[in-house]
Amino acid sequence: MEAFSDGVFAIAMTLLVLDLKVPKADALAAPAGLLTALTRQWPTFAAYLTSFATILVMWVNHHKLFNHIRRTDGAFLFLNGLLLLFVTFVPFPTALVSEFLKRPEARTAAALYAGTYVALAIVFNLLWRYASAGMRLIDPRSKPEEVRAITRDYSFGPAFYFAAFLLAFLSVPASLGLCLGLALFFAVTGSTRRTA
Amino acid sequence: MEAFSDGVFAIAMTLLVLDLKVPKADALAAPAGLLTALTRQWPTFAAYLTSFATILVMWVNHHKLFNHIRRTDGAFLFLNGLLLLFVTFVPFPTALVSEFLKRPEARTAAALYAGTYVALAIVFNLLWRYASAGMRLIDPRSKPEEVRAITRDYSFGPAFYFAAFLLAFLSVPASLGLCLGLALFFAVTGSTRRTA
Amino acid sequence: MEAFSDGVFAIAMTLLVLDLKVPKADALAAPAGLLTALTRQWPTFAAYLTSFATILVMWVNHHKLFNHIRRTDGAFLFLNGLLLLFVTFVPFPTALVSEFLKRPEARTAAALYAGTYVALAIVFNLLWRYASAGMRLIDPRSKPEEVRAITRDYSFGPAFYFAAFLLAFLSVPASLGLCLGLALFFAVTGSTRRTA
Amino acid sequence: MEAFSDGVFAIAMTLLVLDLKVPKADALAAPAGLLTALTRQWPTFAAYLTSFATILVMWVNHHKLFNHIRRTDGAFLFLNGLLLLFVTFVPFPTALVSEFLKRPEARTAAALYAGTYVALAIVFNLLWRYASAGMRLIDPRSKPEEVRAITRDYSFGPAFYFAAFLLAFLSVPASLGLCLGLALFFAVTGSTRRTA
Repeated sequence: MEAFSDGVFAIAMTLLVLDLKVPKADALAAPAGLLTALTRQWPTFAAYLTSFATILVMWVNHHKLFNHIRRTDGAFLFLNGLLLLFVTFVPFPTALVSEFLKRPEARTAAALYAGTYVALAIVFNLLWRYASAGMRLIDPRSKPEEVRAITRDYSFGPAFYFAAFLLAFLSVPASLGLCLGLALFFAVTGSTRRTA
Repeated sequence: MEAFSDGVFAIAMTLLVLDLKVPKADALAAPAGLLTALTRQWPTFAAYLTSFATILVMWVNHHKLFNHIRRTDGAFLFLNGLLLLFVTFVPFPTALVSEFLKRPEARTAAALYAGTYVALAIVFNLLWRYASAGMRLIDPRSKPEEVRAITRDYSFGPAFYFAAFLLAFLSVPASLGLCLGLALFFAVTGSTRRTA
Repeated sequence: MEAFSDGVFAIAMTLLVLDLKVPKADALAAPAGLLTALTRQWPTFAAYLTSFATILVMWVNHHKLFNHIRRTDGAFLFLNGLLLLFVTFVPFPTALVSEFLKRPEARTAAALYAGTYVALAIVFNLLWRYASAGMRLIDPRSKPEEVRAITRDYSFGPAFYFAAFLLAFLSVPASLGLCLGLALFFAVTGSTRRTA
Repeated sequence: MEAFSDGVFAIAMTLLVLDLKVPKADALAAPAGLLTALTRQWPTFAAYLTSFATILVMWVNHHKLFNHIRRTDGAFLFLNGLLLLFVTFVPFPTALVSEFLKRPEARTAAALYAGTYVALAIVFNLLWRYASAGMRLIDPRSKPEEVRAITRDYSFGPAFYFAAFLLAFLSVPASLGLCLGLALFFAVTGSTRRTA
C-alpha cells in the first residue's frame, strides 16, 4: 500500500506541470512579449509552486506516518484511499486558481483551492488518529511520546488551512501565500522532528 | 509483474484528474458564475469519483490476488496484460460520461462506461479462475477455502456490472450510482475478508 | 536501472489513453450519433491497442533480458536510455496514425508508426547483443543455449517490422495489422520461452 | 526518498512526449504535406531529445549520488525537493522552445530553457556539497577520493549551462546544441566514472 501511495503522490506532483500553459505564439504583441506574457502568468507559477510544495510535504509526512504503522485494516485502507483521492485532485483547483486569479471569480477559485487543503488535512488527521487511537495499528516499538508528538503536529493543519480558506474572501494573494507558508512550515517542523 | 501492474493502476488513477475541465474564464456570465459552472459540471465529478474508487478497489483486489499466486505462465501474463489494457482505458469512458451526461447521448455514454466495467470484471474473473483452477498457479500454503471464498466474491462482479449496463438504458444516474455503489461494496467485502 | 525502466514503460503505456479523443458534444448530428462517431474512430482504437500491446510485450522482453544481466557499463546504460527514448516516443506516432488514418497522408503516418517499431527493434537487438557478446554483462549462471535462443528470437524483430514499414506504402490496414500481429506473436513466443 | 525521486524523474521524462504536437489534418496543404509539416517541427523534436537526455543523465547522476548517501536530514530533503521541482518543471521550458523557436521570441525561450538547466545544475551541486561537506551524510565506506571526484565533475555543470544561457542571445541553435552536448558529455563522464 505504501509503495502504491508513493507512486500516486509522485504522479500527482509531476502532472502539475501540465497546468502551466505555454503562451500562443500568434497571440503575442512584440518580440519582447514572451517575457511579459510569462510574467503576467505569475499566478500560475505561484499556484504550481504551492501545490508542488504541499504534495511533497504531504508525501514526506505520509511516509513518516507509515514508519509507525505495523498493520492495516479495512477502515485504514478506506481512509488512505480517500487521502489519495484528494491528492490526485489537487491539480484541478490549482488549474482553477491559474485560470481565474486575475478575474472577479478569483475568491471562489482561491477558496476552493484552500478548501481542498482543508479536506486533505482533515483526512490526514482522521487517518493518523484512526491508526494511533489506543495504538490500534501502531508498531509496538514506536515510542508513545513520538506518536503523541505527531498527533499534536498534525492537529494544527485543518485549522491553519481553514484560516487560508477564510482569508481567500478577504485577499486572494494572502490566502495563497498562507498555503505556501504552511507547506514550508510543515516541511521544517517535519524535518526537525525527523532528525530529532 | 506485480510492481509493474501496481504502477499502471496508480498512473491510470491519477490521470483521471485530466478529465476534469476547468471552465474558461471568458465563457462565464458573472462573478458568481464559477461556482454555478462547477456545480453544473457535477456529472464530471461523479464520474471521476466512481472511476477513482473502481480502479482503487480493483487494485486492492489485484494485490490480494497476487498474494496467493506463486508462479506465472504465458496465459496468466496475457490475461493480466488484458486487465491492464482495460484499466488504462477507464479514463476514456469516464471522459465520455463527463461530456455527454446532460445530452441525449447520455445513455450510450453510460452504457459504454458500465460496459467497460463488465469487461474488467470478466477479465478479472478469467485471470483468477485460470490461476486457481486445480490450484494451477496458487501458492500451496494458501488455504483452499480462502481461494474458494475469493472465487465466490469475484463471481458476482460481471452480473452486477451487467445490471448497471442495462440500467443505463433506463436511468443514467441510477447506472452511475450502481457503479459507485459496487466499488464501495467491493471495498467493504474486500477489506473484511482481508482482516478476517 | 531496471525499476526505473519499468516505470518508464508503465507510464508510456498508460499515457496512450490520452490519444483517444472524446467526440465533441456539439459536433454530433443526432442522439444516435455517439456510437457512430466512436465507430468511425476505429483507427484510433486500433492504434491504441497495437501500441499498448507492443509496449507491454517490449516490457516483458526487457524484463526477461534483465534476468540474465548481472552488471551494467556505460555503453549498456546509453543503449538502454536510447530504448527508453523510443518507448516514450511511441504515443506520438500513435497519435499521428489516429489523426491521419482516413486521410491521404495515412501512408506517411503508418510508415512513421512502423518505422518507430523498426528503430525500437534495432535498439533492442543492439542492447542485447552488446550485453551478450562474449557473455560480456551476462550472469555466469545463465545457460549459453538460453542466451543464444533469446538472440535468435530477437533477431527476427527488425526484419518483421521493416516489412510492416514497407507494407504501409501498399496498404495501411495491412501494415497496422502486421504490427499488432507481431506484438501478439512476440507475446506468445516470449511466454512459451519463459515457461519452457 | 530515492524510489520516490526515481518515480518523479521517470514521469517527468515520459510526460515530455505530450509536448510533441500532432499536425492538424485540416491544416495540411497536400498529401505530401505531413512529412513536410513534421520536418518543419524539428525544433520540437530537438528540444524533446535534449530534455529527455538531460533528465536521463540527471537521474543517472542522482542515482549515483544516493549510492554514497547513508542518511538524510531536513536540509537534504529540502534541497532534494527543490531538485525535483526543477526536474518536473523541465517540460514547460521545453514546450516554450518548441512553440517559439522560429519566432522572434526564440532567444527568450532558449534563454529560459538553458536557465532552467543552470538552476538544476546549481541545486544539484548544493545537494551534493551539503551532503559531502565534512562527509556529513556520506557512507563512511565511500572513498574520499571518489567523493572528491564527484564534487569536481559536478562543479563544471553550472558554468557550462550558464554558457549555454549566454549563447542563447547570440545563436539559439548553438545554445540548444550545447545543452544536448552537455547531456551527452555528462552521460559519458558519468558512465566512465561508474565503471572505473
